[in-house]
Amino acid sequence: AIRYLSKRRQERIRLIGDKLCQEGFDLVLLQEVWSEQDYSDLKAKLASCYPFSHYFRSGVIGSGLCVFSRFPILDTLLYQYSLNGYPYMLQHGDWFCGKSVGLVIMKISGIIFNVYVTHLHAEYCRDKDAYLPHRLVQAWELAQFIRHTSKAADVVLLGGDLNMHPEDVGIRLLRGWTGLRDAFAEATRFEDTPRAPHPPRLLSQGCKNGCTLVPDNCFTDKSEMLPFPLGIRIDYILYKAISSFTVKCEELKTTTGPAPGTAIPFSDHEAVMATLHIQRQGQPAGATLGTAGLQSSGDGEKGIGVVWGGIGMVYGRPSMLRTPVPADLALADVVTEARTEVGVGLRAAQRQRYSWGRMAVLALLLLLLQAAAALGTLAGLGAEQPFPKLSFCLLAFISLGVLILATGLHVFHTMEVKMLHGTEDQMWMALRALQERPSEG
Amino acid sequence: AIRYLSKRRQERIRLIGDKLCQEGFDLVLLQEVWSEQDYSDLKAKLASCYPFSHYFRSGVIGSGLCVFSRFPILDTLLYQYSLNGYPYMLQHGDWFCGKSVGLVIMKISGIIFNVYVTHLHAEYCRDKDAYLPHRLVQAWELAQFIRHTSKAADVVLLGGDLNMHPEDVGIRLLRGWTGLRDAFAEATRFEDTPRAPHPPRLLSQGCKNGCTLVPDNCFTDKSEMLPFPLGIRIDYILYKAISSFTVKCEELKTTTGPAPGTAIPFSDHEAVMATLHIQRQGQPAGATLGTAGLQSSGDGEKGIGVVWGGIGMVYGRPSMLRTPVPADLALADVVTEARTEVGVGLRAAQRQRYSWGRMAVLALLLLLLQAAAALGTLAGLGAEQPFPKLSFCLLAFISLGVLILATGLHVFHTMEVKMLHGTEDQMWMALRALQERPSEG
Repeated sequence: AIRYLSKRRQERIRLIGDKLCQEGFDLVLLQEVWSEQDYSDLKAKLASCYPFSHYFRSGVIGSGLCVFSRFPILDTLLYQYSLNGYPYMLQHGDWFCGKSVGLVIMKISGIIFNVYVTHLHAEYCRDKDAYLPHRLVQAWELAQFIRHTSKAADVVLLGGDLNMHPEDVGIRLLRGWTGLRDAFAEATRFEDTPRAPHPPRLLSQGCKNGCTLVPDNCFTDKSEMLPFPLGIRIDYILYKAISSFTVKCEELKTTTGPAPGTAIPFSDHEAVMATLHIQRQGQPAGATLGTAGLQSSGDGEKGIGVVWGGIGMVYGRPSMLRTPVPADLALADVVTEARTEVGVGLRAAQRQRYSWGRMAVLALLLLLLQAAAALGTLAGLGAEQPFPKLSFCLLAFISLGVLILATGLHVFHTMEVKMLHGTEDQMWMALRALQERPSEG
Repeated sequence: AIRYLSKRRQERIRLIGDKLCQEGFDLVLLQEVWSEQDYSDLKAKLASCYPFSHYFRSGVIGSGLCVFSRFPILDTLLYQYSLNGYPYMLQHGDWFCGKSVGLVIMKISGIIFNVYVTHLHAEYCRDKDAYLPHRLVQAWELAQFIRHTSKAADVVLLGGDLNMHPEDVGIRLLRGWTGLRDAFAEATRFEDTPRAPHPPRLLSQGCKNGCTLVPDNCFTDKSEMLPFPLGIRIDYILYKAISSFTVKCEELKTTTGPAPGTAIPFSDHEAVMATLHIQRQGQPAGATLGTAGLQSSGDGEKGIGVVWGGIGMVYGRPSMLRTPVPADLALADVVTEARTEVGVGLRAAQRQRYSWGRMAVLALLLLLLQAAAALGTLAGLGAEQPFPKLSFCLLAFISLGVLILATGLHVFHTMEVKMLHGTEDQMWMALRALQERPSEG
């Protein structure tokens, strides 16, 4: 929902507000609410059904992240990803959004919830994805942030537009390193299991394969969706229980088609809605709680990707975690794969840093040469003026401009190198820990 | 320790390495190690006595933060502060350092330590401190980061160059909001108490009042130290125990004068060394552990401040926390004070954003006017050339330069406004929580 750019923005914000009021969820995580005015409008409209809310501010435009809740929000924290595209890629604009992960802490029926909402860097070209290293750094920082901040939580929930297909390395890394489970995969698995109640309940409703970016949606770019006739799934609700709780996804739905009574859908992404069943272990079923989350993403991002490839991830599932050694080794493979991609990004960033640095030096040399020539002329060494004044001045201005620009880009890419290098280091430390664990056990 | 700029850098790095080897601390937290080469040299030198280490990479130059340890480092996390000065203040240079807080997690004798190392924005002019709002945002983010990441820790340690005097609002905020205790204040308090063993042990050694920036040090700026003849204390070791542990500062020392056998001190700041006594509650004294931390800051930062004003802070002391209502109200006062300063910074940032935005619009208008004039001349509307070509071109280049620069600064100050606004919001939420607590209890 970008002001002035997004089509029928206010109408759709109104429709989303109506839907939220009508459904009465416990918790709503929204992304791409770029305008604080839209947030204020939603807040005013939802005051009665969602009395608690928070908007996360960051970047130039804002993080776009906000949370509406039926239950009090005890505390919040924002972590801005250290890498998020390039400021000069104006046509993509991710850099200006200050992509972040927001944490809200809530206590519902005595259970402490750490709820994370995030939106990762978009994918503009899947075949030659220049932003993959940045998105992997973000996925890694997200996983690390969740691991380090959720140690006192009973239940962890993550909802957001991750801009990654279910089988992508980033999401395998995120799930493996945090132990988070994918609500869609869990709902489908539950439905598929032969031990399901008879008749089998329809646990997953809405778009086929849980896709959230579908060609039928009139706000998506049809040409980008050509390789994916069924659509792609890039919006997720992930969860896990710590300590003595279990979480089960009872139902997962997505919105489909236009909003009721109108010709347009709510957003370019379909919303994901999950009903989670949370139970204290060793307690009767009476002590349970149903929590529903909806996460909807406004328009502006356009992801393209491969056909949905099934639920091939095993890391973090309780059945695998009971036998730590093979799971650790499989996770080590994922970390290695991610680290390789970060390494590719690191070398690209180093090349950029080098070439902009060289450009800055050349511009400086040219300027110095011009200054020397000008001084020489002033001192009367060259009796006649060797260059036309106008071109001389133009050249000086152009070299000055190039010098400033190239220095700025050199500085920017130096920071990029630092962060990619730092992430590579952290991943290496993680690998060492994973590989050492079996020998210790 | 800035390459090429800092005096006798390599010699002092060697001296610091010698000192660390000789003292054999358990844990060493260093700041302002800007050169990764210096870190590598130290790492090689200290490999036998401190086999574990980590360097935190961020910003253009680096975070300058590193940790050396006798015990294995299990995990690390870096949080870069969202505000850290201005890129155009080249003479101050803080922006380029990517000031951050680094977390390392260690397990020593079964006790989980969360160790934080940080370096906040420098203070260049105490009377008119333009960076106070940024430093307060950093102190707040530091406190929030510690609170949210330390929930599974038994002991929390924070060491670093906080660039704040002991009675400053930022350090009161940090201590109040996290419950961290100041090793120097605790050591002095212990020494002063009438229940101390006879004869009273000298718990605090080194510079008077624990000062870490003293006029005697040949690397400090004498003129900046004039109002503080005794020096100032801006480097800290803070700690607290969670769960069933107690921590006591047994001894606190600072370095003084030149390094042994030389004429120069180790650094422009004096190092702080603490011996901490950590005991599991309800266990005999045999289950204790001594941990010593040294934190030394290289040169480059120059702080000036008021005369050391005693240990006037009560927040977070266990005796106060047992009666939550008055402590909460006192803490609410501190948060209000900090929020007021952040508000002052917010309004200044809004003014900057507005004036740079206006400047950009004016430059754009001038450019458009020139383009219209040029087109008019080309179309033969004005028969004779009204302006000299050279000045016309110069003016166009200058307006283009101003347009780009002003747009960049407008974007930068927009981000500043967002972050200051976000911090104000978070502080308001904290205040509400503090004020609601008594009525609930």
